[in-house]
Amino acid sequence: MNYPTGIKKDHNRLINYKNRGMDLESDLNQSNTYYIDNDIAYIYKKPTPIQVSKVEFINKGAIIKEAFYKEPSTTDYNGIYKGHYIDFEAKETKNKTSFPLANIHLHQYKHLENIERHGGIGFIIVRFTLLDETYLLKASDLFYFTNNNKRKSIPLTFFKKRGFLIKEGYNPRLDYLKIVDTFWR
Amino acid sequence: MNYPTGIKKDHNRLINYKNRGMDLESDLNQSNTYYIDNDIAYIYKKPTPIQVSKVEFINKGAIIKEAFYKEPSTTDYNGIYKGHYIDFEAKETKNKTSFPLANIHLHQYKHLENIERHGGIGFIIVRFTLLDETYLLKASDLFYFTNNNKRKSIPLTFFKKRGFLIKEGYNPRLDYLKIVDTFWR
Repeated sequence: MNYPTGIKKDHNRLINYKNRGMDLESDLNQSNTYYIDNDIAYIYKKPTPIQVSKVEFINKGAIIKEAFYKEPSTTDYNGIYKGHYIDFEAKETKNKTSFPLANIHLHQYKHLENIERHGGIGFIIVRFTLLDETYLLKASDLFYFTNNNKRKSIPLTFFKKRGFLIKEGYNPRLDYLKIVDTFWR
Repeated sequence: MNYPTGIKKDHNRLINYKNRGMDLESDLNQSNTYYIDNDIAYIYKKPTPIQVSKVEFINKGAIIKEAFYKEPSTTDYNGIYKGHYIDFEAKETKNKTSFPLANIHLHQYKHLENIERHGGIGFIIVRFTLLDETYLLKASDLFYFTNNNKRKSIPLTFFKKRGFLIKEGYNPRLDYLKIVDTFWR
């Protein structure tokens, strides 16, 4: 294959950027890799919790033959940024007008509450996939909503009012730490 | 079964305590649960990273039919304590005189270096199982050793000199945060 000079190196990233249907998790992983590569922050997605029930040992390797997905007990992402503990959950919704609260597990809410109380930076990142809009909502604002509403979903207008729209870029795809800088003391 | 008053409730913990062969991971999980229950710190073991290659869907559930263990890209434990980011790796060795450095992956060393540089609290916890001794060694001391030695293992004497012996207790089993308090500003 032939590429114009300088393009080949960034081939994968170029493809990723053009793929507008790329999911939130991939965008965040790409952004976190950017932060790590540039020594900005060390934030990782935790592995999916899996309960292994059957393993076979072949030669020097182990093959898992039966396992089950477990419910996560914390949020998916955490790490360190400018010496601070950072913690968040990321979710996509196909809903165009609101984000159903059932997308986040009860113990994940509790976890975010604990992180806030202990001085960490906690938030959620929600992508409205059909609108192609991604918002960061601080944990404190999430709890402001749940404490003052009996609604089972957060309207998009609430995200527009109290959340932060994360603009999509090339690299990092989602520069959410730029937004953290604006609200974190 | 009959138990004297007040014992039944703590049945599981009683058994655990008596089981002297209990492994380091179980001790740390028990200690972290204690910290969480008492609102002291929120520190979790990350799930083991697993690459899933075959899944079957039966009724409403998913059964993983083929999967493989992946090498972890970070340390196993992290979380928040008194507002600070905390990060560590825990290892057991059957060696009586030294801890082989090969027990920790290269990217885990790099990860701990990054955490230190960004203002987090990084360390390793090493249990010499045959001696029944568990030490906490600060990441800075770990790197002091690796930067000044070509040896492929850290002698027990180094742990005794620069590390901290973690006394085993009932609950928490390993009160390693008490030690963090002694060296963290």
